[in-house]
Amino acid sequence: MSEPAERARELDCADELAPVRGRFVLDDVVYLDGNSLGALPSNVPGRVEDVVRRQWGELRIRSWEESGWWTAPERIGDRIAPLVGAGAGRIVAGDSTSVNVFKALVAAVRMAGGGRDEIVVDATTFPTDGYIAESAARMTGCTLRPVPPAQVPGVLGERTAAVLLNHVDYRTGRLHDLPSLTAAVHEAGALAVWDLCHSAGALPVGLDEHGVDLAVGCTYKYLNGGPGSPAYLYVRSDLQPRFDSPLPGWNSHAEPFGMRQDYAPAAGALRGRVGTPDILSMLALEAALEVWDGVSIEAVRAKSLALTDFFLECVEQYVPPGRVESLTPAAHAERGSQVALRCDDAGDVMKRLIAEGVVGDFRAPDVLRFGFTPLYVGFADTERAARVLARVLAG
Amino acid sequence: MSEPAERARELDCADELAPVRGRFVLDDVVYLDGNSLGALPSNVPGRVEDVVRRQWGELRIRSWEESGWWTAPERIGDRIAPLVGAGAGRIVAGDSTSVNVFKALVAAVRMAGGGRDEIVVDATTFPTDGYIAESAARMTGCTLRPVPPAQVPGVLGERTAAVLLNHVDYRTGRLHDLPSLTAAVHEAGALAVWDLCHSAGALPVGLDEHGVDLAVGCTYKYLNGGPGSPAYLYVRSDLQPRFDSPLPGWNSHAEPFGMRQDYAPAAGALRGRVGTPDILSMLALEAALEVWDGVSIEAVRAKSLALTDFFLECVEQYVPPGRVESLTPAAHAERGSQVALRCDDAGDVMKRLIAEGVVGDFRAPDVLRFGFTPLYVGFADTERAARVLARVLAG
Repeated sequence: MSEPAERARELDCADELAPVRGRFVLDDVVYLDGNSLGALPSNVPGRVEDVVRRQWGELRIRSWEESGWWTAPERIGDRIAPLVGAGAGRIVAGDSTSVNVFKALVAAVRMAGGGRDEIVVDATTFPTDGYIAESAARMTGCTLRPVPPAQVPGVLGERTAAVLLNHVDYRTGRLHDLPSLTAAVHEAGALAVWDLCHSAGALPVGLDEHGVDLAVGCTYKYLNGGPGSPAYLYVRSDLQPRFDSPLPGWNSHAEPFGMRQDYAPAAGALRGRVGTPDILSMLALEAALEVWDGVSIEAVRAKSLALTDFFLECVEQYVPPGRVESLTPAAHAERGSQVALRCDDAGDVMKRLIAEGVVGDFRAPDVLRFGFTPLYVGFADTERAARVLARVLAG
Repeated sequence: MSEPAERARELDCADELAPVRGRFVLDDVVYLDGNSLGALPSNVPGRVEDVVRRQWGELRIRSWEESGWWTAPERIGDRIAPLVGAGAGRIVAGDSTSVNVFKALVAAVRMAGGGRDEIVVDATTFPTDGYIAESAARMTGCTLRPVPPAQVPGVLGERTAAVLLNHVDYRTGRLHDLPSLTAAVHEAGALAVWDLCHSAGALPVGLDEHGVDLAVGCTYKYLNGGPGSPAYLYVRSDLQPRFDSPLPGWNSHAEPFGMRQDYAPAAGALRGRVGTPDILSMLALEAALEVWDGVSIEAVRAKSLALTDFFLECVEQYVPPGRVESLTPAAHAERGSQVALRCDDAGDVMKRLIAEGVVGDFRAPDVLRFGFTPLYVGFADTERAARVLARVLAG
């Protein structure tokens, strides 16, 4: 056994999260794509079957009340809340991340008020946030200013209404400094909107603690909610009474079954709801969140850093120098839960890796992305991934 | 056997759609709430199980391509299309009805151009359409003008940008004249946006034939897609190149995996997509649409009218005069697929009806709603519903 393989065995033995792996359906593939689609939690199929056969098939319409369908968006929001450092009543689940970015940004501009007419957006963002920010700017009479996150503090000013940032860069895996950037945005009198897609479930976020104004995220990556599962929207508690949604659907009405012609928003996070929630996906997500029972996000973060450290070490040891270049920061304070390796033939390399049982993903034009989900990825998996990668790169 | 019961037996024997009932999971409840949540098609549970266990659980990320997840919104759109008289490539499934109303109305105003700054909305609409229309008006600098559908032609003019109408009134079941109202809107140089929630799957719509500009609808009523299943958006073929979405998410990009910072819309109906589609609900809907194999919407319409005629007759025969008042038009040309009966104690009456195995719903303050889904409701069910109603009203 090689030295890294031996070390992997020891690390796995000492891993307090190792038993959590048993809560997922896995096979002998090394699955390093949980930052794109989380693996299936074992309790989900049975729950979905119950939702379909009994709740829909037998109770039918009665389930809106009796099976708790109607209140699912806020109930699931409360379940997500502790994972991102939010108190109860601040998050609702529903819609896609893109739609929630639109709600959050438009609402932020409206709350900023006072002649503020500029939206600053992370220039390195996952594209959809940029496209939606452009639309939000256009529809609120704002100018859109794309800026790399590090330069954000330097461009803030009296015109800044809202700033849309990613907690972790989808491509490089770089973790941005949420507390200090949020403070800088607040200092300028603007509102901070954070996209947590690549951090929620992988590391502590501390939304309440750091006074984040609004946040959105998906649930199908580190939260394992299933393909296209509902996204969520966080609104800081004291801002909720001023949250003025551009998508005021009947589900956010103070009295949704009153069938009133005039809109009157509900109190609290419910204001972020729009139309009828997508129950099958919503309740699959609710079941998936049970894998977090008894798991602390701090333990997840510690293991995540240990895994990515170990992967980078194995890559350095196994892969010929210069063949790949890590885009992921070495400093822990700047690293999310993925490792991104640049190489010219990344598209081909990823195809061959997948054929050899190591699943990551490719981001055009030249990035190999490996996501480490501490709930089900172990150190032996990690060593094997680096070993196979070296073989593929050599071939 | 009473005369109506005898006649019900004969009508059921002659019903060419009777065998379709076998494609649903039903019990001995008379389910007249398919206009709120359609019953469960028998093939759905198995399909959903495959999506969860095999597509998500085993293939995981590969399913976006191998299981056709990525193309589901347009594939399912094409499956809905013939039911509403649309050609292929004009409909995408996804998001909620409310979100699609927003996309459609904002895009309609943008296409209307030329100083047109008024949105006309059905004053009797299901509330969410009115709330969203108000938001669309606010965000496009338009005035919102709520008008009862019959008065719409009289208020159209040079300022009218778009008109949002319901094909069937959710409360009374009144069917509005889509061809003539659309023609009137076009005559005024404006765009017609139709909400098909209460007509799609119950009667022919003829979107292409009547030149409808944009349309939206849900899929959980007469299309039996399941609780909160994805809605859909129709954009007339020749308008697609000018469709300018207020929610330009990455799924509507011409090259979604190009990760481009600049937005360039896809061609065709795909332009109506936004974020990552909700696969569990989406594929449950796709399975549910298979119950339409070999079923003509004309046959459904004929049976729907026969059922509602028969129900009204039975009510007249069984229920003491004056105890309820029908809000549903007697004329076939003005009737959807539901019967709405007004009575002061409607809330209580519906509770007792449900307890006696007849499920309709209550719409505040005083309406009993009975939806007739011709795919699984028969004439004996209908006679029984009227009989139980009479007993409850007498008690």
